[in-house]
Amino acid sequence: MRIAIVGAGALGLYYGAMLQRSGEDVHFLLRRDYDAVSRNGLRVFSINGDFQLPKVQAHRTPDTIGVVDLVLVGLKTFANVHYRELITPLVGEGTEILTLQNGLGNEEVLAEVFGGERVIGGVAFLCSNRAEPGEVHHLGAGRIVLGEYRRLEAARIERLAALFSRAGVPCQTTPDLTRARWEKLVWNIPFNGLCALVQQPVDQLLAKSATRKLVRELMIEVISAANTQGLLSPIGERFADAMLDFTDKMGVYKPSMQIDREEGRLLEIEAIFRTPLCYAEKQGIAMPRVEMLATLLEQATLV
Amino acid sequence: MRIAIVGAGALGLYYGAMLQRSGEDVHFLLRRDYDAVSRNGLRVFSINGDFQLPKVQAHRTPDTIGVVDLVLVGLKTFANVHYRELITPLVGEGTEILTLQNGLGNEEVLAEVFGGERVIGGVAFLCSNRAEPGEVHHLGAGRIVLGEYRRLEAARIERLAALFSRAGVPCQTTPDLTRARWEKLVWNIPFNGLCALVQQPVDQLLAKSATRKLVRELMIEVISAANTQGLLSPIGERFADAMLDFTDKMGVYKPSMQIDREEGRLLEIEAIFRTPLCYAEKQGIAMPRVEMLATLLEQATLV
Repeated sequence: MRIAIVGAGALGLYYGAMLQRSGEDVHFLLRRDYDAVSRNGLRVFSINGDFQLPKVQAHRTPDTIGVVDLVLVGLKTFANVHYRELITPLVGEGTEILTLQNGLGNEEVLAEVFGGERVIGGVAFLCSNRAEPGEVHHLGAGRIVLGEYRRLEAARIERLAALFSRAGVPCQTTPDLTRARWEKLVWNIPFNGLCALVQQPVDQLLAKSATRKLVRELMIEVISAANTQGLLSPIGERFADAMLDFTDKMGVYKPSMQIDREEGRLLEIEAIFRTPLCYAEKQGIAMPRVEMLATLLEQATLV
Repeated sequence: MRIAIVGAGALGLYYGAMLQRSGEDVHFLLRRDYDAVSRNGLRVFSINGDFQLPKVQAHRTPDTIGVVDLVLVGLKTFANVHYRELITPLVGEGTEILTLQNGLGNEEVLAEVFGGERVIGGVAFLCSNRAEPGEVHHLGAGRIVLGEYRRLEAARIERLAALFSRAGVPCQTTPDLTRARWEKLVWNIPFNGLCALVQQPVDQLLAKSATRKLVRELMIEVISAANTQGLLSPIGERFADAMLDFTDKMGVYKPSMQIDREEGRLLEIEAIFRTPLCYAEKQGIAMPRVEMLATLLEQATLV
């Protein structure tokens, strides 16, 4: 399968490398890592075993890639304004576009530009970091949950799931992409938000009863909003407790937004906070603590 | 009048100096400033004109002061655990105790230790800083609103107000100390809290619509809680808008809690946040954003 990786940060590099290793024809659209990757290929340091791809098809522009079967979008969401210029040269008649980006609203914008029938959404549970150019660290997890944006055809996402599974990436499908996205937000909103704001890893938030209570209250707000979004089945409050238990086991873990802030990068506040707030408001539901957290993050990271 | 100043930070030094200048017999209980003040007296740099007191009665312990007519308490509220040891030697039969401290709960604890009939509360609107030992800067305002803790006798606080007025400190009395305290919290909770948390002065919070909205929402929570506290008359929502307008005129102003955080000092989170939250909860009313702000401040200033 001819695949283009658009947005080759840690996520794009890792999944692209896994797909190439399994024999797919993968093309990477690169900026920072272009020189290193075209010269020396890609090194993956993974909890599942390190590996190296000495020859990688690296590109500076989408025009030299041309039409592909699958576009895998791993852009940071604030780069979505560049969808059109980055993806258009890659799209032919049968091209599918899979976004593994964070938060909400990505499928909607892709559908607007390229047509909803092409768009597949995926929720990635991946812990990875970029290091030196041409290197990517896979620190934990990696599972993907795929869903159709338009909830039409199950066969297509099953084929895509098989592609990832063959490549060693655990991959499931869901009939309810919206639910999968909101479930991830139940974790992402409190932990990415609070850890980035107070600049402490998850264990420090969980150690004190006041912050643990706040984390759970944020989760409950997100769950309440999720359940107004036409899910096939509602998310229960027990999901919040399961997420707390799950996070307790993570130890001294820094969410990506905390690392982004430490390193002075832009934060994905629109996709992870403002768009969910907007979708909730459309259904007449407020998330006062989530809104406060978004506002504080924006204010604290003003330049 | 024989007066002891307990807690001679910027507030205690300033009001004590004003009272001494007007002819009162003022004794300062000092720690950091003892050497400088006993050697060289006190210098006040004030928007109303600088002045110097070459001879000041400085003490290291309350025992050398002995019984006074009036104890003026200006301690940071987290030092309230020391009330008994610091104030007991100063109290005789007719001694009155005036607390000009921040937040809620100070009169209650003083009343418990020394008897409620002695206790008078005052809300100080003073902008002052300590500088070098023996120096205090009066940067703005200075008005005091006095109220009886037990709401019994108006004559006593009128006499006290006259004492301050003679000393050049604008001073009013109120029949509703509780209302005065909560009114000050309507400003203190959002501005002290948010400015300390994001480490920006008030104008930066007011400049953006999202933070301005958050400030107002915090104010409304405080007003709603205040109106369950048995006030003689309720505080209206318009008070929030008046406070916003008032603060717009302050320009680049750093609330004291922001300065305390910058300088690594303990914050008065109990008196300004947790006690009001507790009083509100006793009346069955939640302040979700205020609680979140308190939790974030505590977490962000963990040592």
